[in-house]
Amino acid sequence: MRRHPERAAYDAASLDAVLRAGWLAHVGFAQTPADPPVVLPMLYAWLDGALYLHGAVASRMLRTLAGGTPCCVTVTHVDGLVLARSHFSHSVNYRSAVVFGRASNVDEPVEKQRVLAAFVDAILPGRAVESRPGDANEVAATRLLRVSVEQASVKCRSGGVRDHAEDLGLPAWAGVVPLITHALPAQPEPELPPGMPLPASVQRLLNHP
Amino acid sequence: MRRHPERAAYDAASLDAVLRAGWLAHVGFAQTPADPPVVLPMLYAWLDGALYLHGAVASRMLRTLAGGTPCCVTVTHVDGLVLARSHFSHSVNYRSAVVFGRASNVDEPVEKQRVLAAFVDAILPGRAVESRPGDANEVAATRLLRVSVEQASVKCRSGGVRDHAEDLGLPAWAGVVPLITHALPAQPEPELPPGMPLPASVQRLLNHP
Repeated sequence: MRRHPERAAYDAASLDAVLRAGWLAHVGFAQTPADPPVVLPMLYAWLDGALYLHGAVASRMLRTLAGGTPCCVTVTHVDGLVLARSHFSHSVNYRSAVVFGRASNVDEPVEKQRVLAAFVDAILPGRAVESRPGDANEVAATRLLRVSVEQASVKCRSGGVRDHAEDLGLPAWAGVVPLITHALPAQPEPELPPGMPLPASVQRLLNHP
Repeated sequence: MRRHPERAAYDAASLDAVLRAGWLAHVGFAQTPADPPVVLPMLYAWLDGALYLHGAVASRMLRTLAGGTPCCVTVTHVDGLVLARSHFSHSVNYRSAVVFGRASNVDEPVEKQRVLAAFVDAILPGRAVESRPGDANEVAATRLLRVSVEQASVKCRSGGVRDHAEDLGLPAWAGVVPLITHALPAQPEPELPPGMPLPASVQRLLNHP
């Protein structure tokens, strides 16, 4: 990490903190060593110190990953806009984790069902117990990959504007605008029985966005 | 696009819509053909149908990209949680663009300054005119890359839950929770003159999150 080394970390606790906070990764790999890299958005689960991806058994991408081709799994959280007095000093507050590793299939059905439930809880904590777990056919139709973490780095920028000293007198406003992901009111499916209350998972999300 | 072909689009208008809506990309490339792919979060600007990346001239990553190595620039917007009656049918509403191309340096200083201003307006429309443009030294210290769009695809999921018919009678709530990026109150820098009002760009963001 040569640029902004003060933003970098390589310890397990920093990695855990970034991965625990999200569920969307951008996964890079090459279909063959001769192909250019592909970067695709994927859900992930981070469970007991292991990183999982999943998808349809028939997916060519997942089959390639399962073959052990090197992959890079990157997770980024945007925390705010850093609005400086100069264009040059504008920035963004963020936390990101970059994981290099290789994926392999998880085949044992009970373990698969358990990890697939963690994908549901990743997008909304507590949601897995509110919905039907995968049955044997669904679990069999899903490819579950565990990514070995061979190397990882975390990078964060936080805090305020770092303008050049000679710009501090400019008549320009400067400051940080924090950004959060915010849940809007839930849209129940029209076929639900009338009067069915919002489940606890959604209520928590709407109360503590 | 073999999985969920109904979600895919390849036309210029769809690509433009996804790229116009964002400013954070995940960029994948290999440092050398023998290296595994790296995926890094980067700001981007999408200006007059061209895709730009930027960073420090000294950055090894940017130098590699500028050498014309194949890269993949992926932009993803998350629009909502799709909470189904079964784990299997849980999903996420999203829009994503995957662009394959090669980058090259933009060296002309006036053009660089113009595009670098677009990076400022990308994170907050109208912000560039409120702050000092890059001077000759800053422009020279910044590497600006234009990515040729050689191939691109867009994928979107929208709408409600698609549960299996046999799950519709389950006593589980189902629906969509829309997610948006929301700005919290601005945090002015402590050195600002007292009483300096919020600039128009920030006011618009806070009024229309």
